[in-house]
Amino acid sequence: MKRMYVEDVKGFKEDEVLLKGWVHKITEFKDFGFVQLRDKTGIIQLVVCKDELKGLRLEMTIEAVGTKVENKKAIGGIEIKVKSIKILGKTYYDMLPIPVNEYKNSAHLETELDYRYISLRAPRVNAVFKVQEEITTAFRNYLKENHFSEIYTPKIIASGTEGGSELFTVNYFDHRAFLAQSPQFYKQMMVGAGFEKVFEIGHAYRAELHNTWRHLNEYVSLDAEMGFIKDENDIMDLEEGFINYLFSHLKKTCKKELEMYDVDLADEVKIPRIPLAEAHKILLDKYGKRSPVGNIDAEGEVLISKYVKETYDTDFVFLTEYPIAKRPMYTMPDGKGNTRSFDLIFKGLEITTGGQRINDYEMLRENIKKFGFNPDDYGFYLESFRYGMPPHGGFAIGLERITIKILNLQNVREASTFPRDMKRIEP
Amino acid sequence: MKRMYVEDVKGFKEDEVLLKGWVHKITEFKDFGFVQLRDKTGIIQLVVCKDELKGLRLEMTIEAVGTKVENKKAIGGIEIKVKSIKILGKTYYDMLPIPVNEYKNSAHLETELDYRYISLRAPRVNAVFKVQEEITTAFRNYLKENHFSEIYTPKIIASGTEGGSELFTVNYFDHRAFLAQSPQFYKQMMVGAGFEKVFEIGHAYRAELHNTWRHLNEYVSLDAEMGFIKDENDIMDLEEGFINYLFSHLKKTCKKELEMYDVDLADEVKIPRIPLAEAHKILLDKYGKRSPVGNIDAEGEVLISKYVKETYDTDFVFLTEYPIAKRPMYTMPDGKGNTRSFDLIFKGLEITTGGQRINDYEMLRENIKKFGFNPDDYGFYLESFRYGMPPHGGFAIGLERITIKILNLQNVREASTFPRDMKRIEP
Repeated sequence: MKRMYVEDVKGFKEDEVLLKGWVHKITEFKDFGFVQLRDKTGIIQLVVCKDELKGLRLEMTIEAVGTKVENKKAIGGIEIKVKSIKILGKTYYDMLPIPVNEYKNSAHLETELDYRYISLRAPRVNAVFKVQEEITTAFRNYLKENHFSEIYTPKIIASGTEGGSELFTVNYFDHRAFLAQSPQFYKQMMVGAGFEKVFEIGHAYRAELHNTWRHLNEYVSLDAEMGFIKDENDIMDLEEGFINYLFSHLKKTCKKELEMYDVDLADEVKIPRIPLAEAHKILLDKYGKRSPVGNIDAEGEVLISKYVKETYDTDFVFLTEYPIAKRPMYTMPDGKGNTRSFDLIFKGLEITTGGQRINDYEMLRENIKKFGFNPDDYGFYLESFRYGMPPHGGFAIGLERITIKILNLQNVREASTFPRDMKRIEP
Repeated sequence: MKRMYVEDVKGFKEDEVLLKGWVHKITEFKDFGFVQLRDKTGIIQLVVCKDELKGLRLEMTIEAVGTKVENKKAIGGIEIKVKSIKILGKTYYDMLPIPVNEYKNSAHLETELDYRYISLRAPRVNAVFKVQEEITTAFRNYLKENHFSEIYTPKIIASGTEGGSELFTVNYFDHRAFLAQSPQFYKQMMVGAGFEKVFEIGHAYRAELHNTWRHLNEYVSLDAEMGFIKDENDIMDLEEGFINYLFSHLKKTCKKELEMYDVDLADEVKIPRIPLAEAHKILLDKYGKRSPVGNIDAEGEVLISKYVKETYDTDFVFLTEYPIAKRPMYTMPDGKGNTRSFDLIFKGLEITTGGQRINDYEMLRENIKKFGFNPDDYGFYLESFRYGMPPHGGFAIGLERITIKILNLQNVREASTFPRDMKRIEP
């Protein structure tokens, strides 16, 4: 007999089924018991006789053969009258360190992360990663439909000249190397190398000394880079298109999971584009909030999101026209003292930095100098601009960040299978 | 006017088109010239007047507006009579360091890799990565159709106890960490955590002191792990199914690229499963080749491939029943002194190691001791087996290795965008 998934039981023609999964819950009565069997696709109730019940413990893996019986009180209206149960994976514990079958996890997040191989089993936690997988699927499908190629670029790099956050060092044979904080240089070079439009879904590393709800030191970055653009608006159009595609995709593929988190995604997302200076003015006039020069802080992100929610009924806002000094040296200036770059804020959290990049060799070389750096330090990256680089730009989305904002979670660690931060490197 | 890709020109209804791309080739005549424009999708001939030709150099990026004209001598039977050309990305070179428009790359591989941002532009090189992208697509689609979930697991890990190859160390804040040589422990834990069937496409790191045609220190690993199996044959069935799916997928999606490399993929792949001891005997009897104890060396891989090609007309062979001492401590023993593990050899190169894993806590603990290790060193990994781990197994395929074997390339570096080896960490 072939193993069947729980979600397929109801529609199955035969009465007898073979199921495999974990013992989710046990309820004992005088002569028999209920065992909830949980597999990858759902939970179903088994009716088990006293004898078979004896050896069972929560979270064991079992296989059960039985016949379908209708029971309106059971989950899904169906239960399985079990003929035989076989234990496939034994348990060795006195007490489960955290409960799996509670609707809400009562454990502290740190405890959940300590026992990640158990907490991930809880349907509510598992659902986060189902949604996350569909976010990456939507990203990939959307970009492929738009002529993008998926690429894999190195994470071990020779120098850390992109600027910005701190880098982790790697002992690479005889010399010191670094972990890439983003595929920025490489995705640009791939555009120039004839791939034109590329994306990468891969790890990025930031040795930042921040241990907050929104920082991870290893995270998954959804990176896109696109050649032959007119300006940064093409990139914002691309990302806005993605957000709409994503929401529509999630509604189709994650109905159950979105309901679990009581999430109602918009049917259409139109994202206002507000120049940073204007945003500063709004924050000051409306909320008395002063912003740091050329940027917006965490409080500002929350307030500007409040503003666009009230004004445009949207959870998203592009902040544009960041000043030159506040952006990396490869950012395209707009000729008015600012850059052709943007951030995307989603429900009070920055999830994207993007923009148009400089594509002319001489201009890039001069800009590097203007920033006080030495062009020689940019070796092959700068060299690659000698050979006909098209106008281009791109963006990156932090996967854990967009996941928690979609599901209204509180901490990026909830959206990382095995998060890495300043204090955590296990499990 | 909207930009059009070269591949769409022929079927386009209007006569006037806007194209963007690189200057692939220039041929000057007395009054006019031909410019081959290369974009992501192909090459097309532009007919350009003397004046417009003047500023053009090889590999510049341009946009051209013109009208379609039939010309049987041109590539694809069509050329574009150009009205206007605009330079989008200038060049700054005296001489191209390596040619892009030659059919065969005349440059040495090391030179190609030094100038990767140029060599990748050559259609013949670009094709390798088109095929590689479709290999990952096939892997993903095949597994998703079989109820697998895509996962992302950490590459920064706390301890290097998996055994086997050497590890790179990372300076992680106050302590020493490592780069994961495979997602082995994590993919197993994800199976146990209720995901049942998982796969990951991600980087793996090996600090091996080998600088050969088949070694990379950073490579892309196609990892799969599957719960609720009967034994290792389920895993080999899964991989054999993938190879067949892959070949069929590549024939559909990479016709042009396979032709470029003169590759004819089999319609059906049946992979013989030969116990290692039997393979040793075949090698000795047929080729006078002695093998190392409990393994097969590079020469043996080539000879056993020759044998299965001649005997079964196949490029693949599973070697099975490796002895316990030659496999990692988590490998399931078969009760006869060997393990439920296998290697997959493809055209003389090992591309996969796989097998069934131990899923019982006590058995794993005892096996760790038998191997002379301390169970305490396996911390959370061993702990995760206390909570009902299903019978499971998996395999991993080296992406660069399978790519070069499919296309009959000579060196794994040819199938890595920016390879990392003992001597190379740039570009």
